[in-house]
Amino acid sequence: MEKIETYRFTVEPFHVDFTGHLFMGVLGNHLLNAAGRHSHNRGWGIDQLNENHYTWVLSRLSIELNEMPAQYEQVEVETWVESVMKLFTERNFLIRNAKDGRIYGYARSIWAMIDTATRQPSDLIALKDGDILHYVLTADEKPCPIAKHGRVRLSSVAQPLRTIDTHYSDVDINGHINSVKYIEHILDLFPRQQFEQHAIHRFEIAYKAEAFMGEPLTFVGEPSTDILSDGTPISTQIEIRKNVGAVDKPAGESIVTAQIFWK
Amino acid sequence: MEKIETYRFTVEPFHVDFTGHLFMGVLGNHLLNAAGRHSHNRGWGIDQLNENHYTWVLSRLSIELNEMPAQYEQVEVETWVESVMKLFTERNFLIRNAKDGRIYGYARSIWAMIDTATRQPSDLIALKDGDILHYVLTADEKPCPIAKHGRVRLSSVAQPLRTIDTHYSDVDINGHINSVKYIEHILDLFPRQQFEQHAIHRFEIAYKAEAFMGEPLTFVGEPSTDILSDGTPISTQIEIRKNVGAVDKPAGESIVTAQIFWK
Repeated sequence: MEKIETYRFTVEPFHVDFTGHLFMGVLGNHLLNAAGRHSHNRGWGIDQLNENHYTWVLSRLSIELNEMPAQYEQVEVETWVESVMKLFTERNFLIRNAKDGRIYGYARSIWAMIDTATRQPSDLIALKDGDILHYVLTADEKPCPIAKHGRVRLSSVAQPLRTIDTHYSDVDINGHINSVKYIEHILDLFPRQQFEQHAIHRFEIAYKAEAFMGEPLTFVGEPSTDILSDGTPISTQIEIRKNVGAVDKPAGESIVTAQIFWK
Repeated sequence: MEKIETYRFTVEPFHVDFTGHLFMGVLGNHLLNAAGRHSHNRGWGIDQLNENHYTWVLSRLSIELNEMPAQYEQVEVETWVESVMKLFTERNFLIRNAKDGRIYGYARSIWAMIDTATRQPSDLIALKDGDILHYVLTADEKPCPIAKHGRVRLSSVAQPLRTIDTHYSDVDINGHINSVKYIEHILDLFPRQQFEQHAIHRFEIAYKAEAFMGEPLTFVGEPSTDILSDGTPISTQIEIRKNVGAVDKPAGESIVTAQIFWK
């Protein structure tokens, strides 16, 4: 079996923002579909693993773009596994135009395999006699020329930006707020002018804990002190918290962190 | 050219709700894609018409289902034009399982062609020497066995249910709140229990005016007095209003109406 899976899609009209470019959340969705296809075709799909009470959990996703695909463009996503550790695996993505081959950008992700009975991460190398190691393409064999995932560290100047309720459309088949919806809600914190004047250069997100339908989410943000030529921050760190204001822990529980770099 | 266009899709994992069935908004998106494909392949696509300053505007959409497609199911949508009047055309849809052919349901829609310079509806039959008439399949030739669009008439007992702000992810390439997002926001008015106990039998929506990013939307609702066996209303009428509380018109402007029938 080929180590690289290629997944194709066309940028649909309802999947573009007011600038005519694909929504970052929809791009994330396509990357997750590509990952699912790669796993499934190699005997590691959620549908195959669920029978044995295992499921893949996305821990981190970082997307870095020269350019976001535009309406009606045809896109190819290549995905492969860069490394496998005991409890985590790194999966990378290349995103290019299917017609002229120009590269829109790359993405990196980190996944764990959770035992749904115990909720504990499983030993990836012990599963299926180390079968997953057959699919590794090292960084030398297939480079992914973007930085690894960064760390979000909010300081004491970080401010609550918005609190939202969560509803029916926010949750996935497991009843958890879905990974793609978090991306949407994070970008919805920014005003129209931000997207008129800047494109996203890099988007990083780390999924740390689950939230459920109906749980309010509080978005805390901290812009960088480094600025772009028009004086706006180069990047913004975001933390999503639930149970903010709880008597025993007023700051709440951190469930997602993210960082957006603008250009 | 064949009068019916067939559009295929697979129900993706991030497109299903907590019951494992396709979100109604995502189904709507697929129907609109099917419509776009049908029009484009017959020389009536937005990309072809925009050069002449025309664009299709969706006026009404009614979807009636025996069953909503489930995760990983392969779906075929057939779409065709049932009739053409001077200022409107009726487009229908059949939605079936691609493997066993069972019919999930049908949909009806009404569209106008707007001249983007004048914002006025155009005479569909005068355009391109009546070319559109070549594609009509009458109700006798291709039946669509669901009722035509109903009317929403809120009474004085209708109550404001929720007011939301609108953000970046809500708007389309024209800067208008997108047709699919309205469906999401309407279904987000209902609690988890509604979807645990009932499926949507029919969903009707009428698009009456545009709203823009940042405009707050007020959702007003009125449940039917007719009830299901568990005592919950058979249907709910919804009206979405903007500029509620304006000095000259406190009730605001009605931009969307919808009606949901449960089973």
